[in-house]
Amino acid sequence: MTMKGEKASGGVCAPQGFKAGAAACGLKAGGDLDLCVLTSETRCTAAATFTTNAFQAAPVAVTIKHLEKDGYLQAAVVNAGNANAWTGERGEVDAQAMAALTAQETGIHPRDVAVASTGVIGHYLDMEKVRKGTTQASAHLDRVGGADAARAIMTTDTFPKEVAWEYGGFSVGGMAKGAGMIKPDMATMLAFITTDAGVEPALLSRALRSAVDRTFNRITIDGCTSTNDMVLVLANGVSGVKLSAEEMEGPLHEACSALARAIVEDGEGATRFIAVRIHGAADGVEAKRAAMTVAESALVKTAFFGGDPNWGRVVQALGQAVKDIDPEGVSIRIGGITAAEAGKPMQVDIAELEAAVAGKKIALDVFLGRGDADIEVWTCDYSYDYVKINAEYHT
Amino acid sequence: MTMKGEKASGGVCAPQGFKAGAAACGLKAGGDLDLCVLTSETRCTAAATFTTNAFQAAPVAVTIKHLEKDGYLQAAVVNAGNANAWTGERGEVDAQAMAALTAQETGIHPRDVAVASTGVIGHYLDMEKVRKGTTQASAHLDRVGGADAARAIMTTDTFPKEVAWEYGGFSVGGMAKGAGMIKPDMATMLAFITTDAGVEPALLSRALRSAVDRTFNRITIDGCTSTNDMVLVLANGVSGVKLSAEEMEGPLHEACSALARAIVEDGEGATRFIAVRIHGAADGVEAKRAAMTVAESALVKTAFFGGDPNWGRVVQALGQAVKDIDPEGVSIRIGGITAAEAGKPMQVDIAELEAAVAGKKIALDVFLGRGDADIEVWTCDYSYDYVKINAEYHT
Repeated sequence: MTMKGEKASGGVCAPQGFKAGAAACGLKAGGDLDLCVLTSETRCTAAATFTTNAFQAAPVAVTIKHLEKDGYLQAAVVNAGNANAWTGERGEVDAQAMAALTAQETGIHPRDVAVASTGVIGHYLDMEKVRKGTTQASAHLDRVGGADAARAIMTTDTFPKEVAWEYGGFSVGGMAKGAGMIKPDMATMLAFITTDAGVEPALLSRALRSAVDRTFNRITIDGCTSTNDMVLVLANGVSGVKLSAEEMEGPLHEACSALARAIVEDGEGATRFIAVRIHGAADGVEAKRAAMTVAESALVKTAFFGGDPNWGRVVQALGQAVKDIDPEGVSIRIGGITAAEAGKPMQVDIAELEAAVAGKKIALDVFLGRGDADIEVWTCDYSYDYVKINAEYHT
Repeated sequence: MTMKGEKASGGVCAPQGFKAGAAACGLKAGGDLDLCVLTSETRCTAAATFTTNAFQAAPVAVTIKHLEKDGYLQAAVVNAGNANAWTGERGEVDAQAMAALTAQETGIHPRDVAVASTGVIGHYLDMEKVRKGTTQASAHLDRVGGADAARAIMTTDTFPKEVAWEYGGFSVGGMAKGAGMIKPDMATMLAFITTDAGVEPALLSRALRSAVDRTFNRITIDGCTSTNDMVLVLANGVSGVKLSAEEMEGPLHEACSALARAIVEDGEGATRFIAVRIHGAADGVEAKRAAMTVAESALVKTAFFGGDPNWGRVVQALGQAVKDIDPEGVSIRIGGITAAEAGKPMQVDIAELEAAVAGKKIALDVFLGRGDADIEVWTCDYSYDYVKINAEYHT
């Protein structure tokens, strides 16, 4: 079945059987919510994807261990303000303590608790604050706690990122955080997705990998892979609906896609959302490399910030990414308007092209003419505020 | 012999037998010098390295052809303001016409003329202006023309980049341009080096490749490989001194190193020069990948702009570059002060670390503990002015 969802509210608590609670324990300055706990009334099949950065943070290592046990989890505890990354053995002990504290407060087995952190790298967690926060967040666990949880995981995010869909019989909910921190470090991406559908662990994992590969793995803010990235899905089966991997894929893709788009729209300092579409690459690897090189080019991103439809910078990136490309075979369309075709500058109306990049959303279509592989990736522009956010707040 | 040079003046005209002339022909707005011609009184053995970007500009293609003929050249013509890149057949005809015009004005064979361009990509050259400029620059050819030539190749450079050394019997001179343009496109790097020593073409080429690999290929402003990069060395032998590849290497390295450093110091918007030194990498490839990933990280570069000794961002980049690195084996020193050792945050004096990144020059030492390979690469910080230069001037 190809399922069509109805938008709902409630975020990660939209599916039956999930509760969330948040607390402000002082890890963020200013008294903002900075720790949350998410629980299910039953054990959930769980699946997750994690950062490929070698400096994988302690909470990532702990969550992998807990997940590998039997593929089931029942809760997650997340803090913002400190990433607990590059903190060695002590960091891992601290992450395990977060799971144990949460288990103690909720009556869930410690090894059924996922742990995630986001914030500054290379500093130890203040466990006194974490202990207080975990107790408070657990005391506030509620069916309407999704919104607070989505706020608690924010760092330099300017808005909370929540989604929920109702699929007639079961629901999918999700929350994510994006690019930056109060004491910013990097695009520390976290996403949590819940469903009351029932899915076998291996099938859930397959559906998630497929969805993540086509959504979160196709966005870039600044080209920097965080040490703490984590996408976690929990399926508690409370709705009584059982889904195959194929059936779960559509709803998961919908949730991941909406959260990934929200992360890019809220990229550090972003003023424009840019969809980079590569057409006619030789294969998928080439398509992605070309798209990512364009999407990560500081020159392309600053040009779009300046409202400059600068196709010369796009070909610079393409020629860096695909060394044997034939320049004469490449065409570029910006906002649907052909800027250059087959290696020849067009007699384009520059004013018309400038209008095409003046809005909040820009479509950049690049035709390579080498094969059948297409891809679409999302990025944002590079503004003064990107520099400000990352230069002016010190660790 | 290991030669020690004495600093001299005159740039590319410091060696005997070279003349340069420049003109303002309207390719740059504002009446600045924008075209130059460089000639030798005799044919020179020549060697060059070129961009690896697939969208290699027309002048690059023409210069490669002229150089491949017999390894000799006698002149170069260079314009700024338009890169003559991604301009197809018409672009190549235009680049050949630049060589032909220069040949006509100087009495040198057209195939002994190198051609280089820098500026906006994807626009045809205005050949009427180029014709006028070539005539004027040729009329101004002079033994003291090096300074004007160095000015004529500037784009968003804030100072001309010239070097000259006297080695007792022969000299080496050079000029380069760096990062950006009046109508900026990318770090279109050009360098021209002259010497009155005599070196066989194959030996000159070997010496140049070695020098470039350890200098220009170890700098990065924004990670974007231009379509027009070119380093050209001309050796006219007028001094009567004959050098082997080994003997030529030292002086060439000295010239390339000084010009590469000047390019980074004058990087678009740069306020600080950063030396990234990787120690103990498994091999040279890993050392360079680690160094370049740190040096190109927007997060590292904005942190240094903000005076933030943010070692967490350095490990993020390392973990992205070297996927199997052991975090516990890594140590980081900033300005000579250990910030973190063996995966453990130190009890460092933050004020002392901040003082170490407050100046115009920052040394970042990273110890990987994996092997014997070391490398040093140079980069600059990322400031508001980088965004301004690349966003506010439209093509």
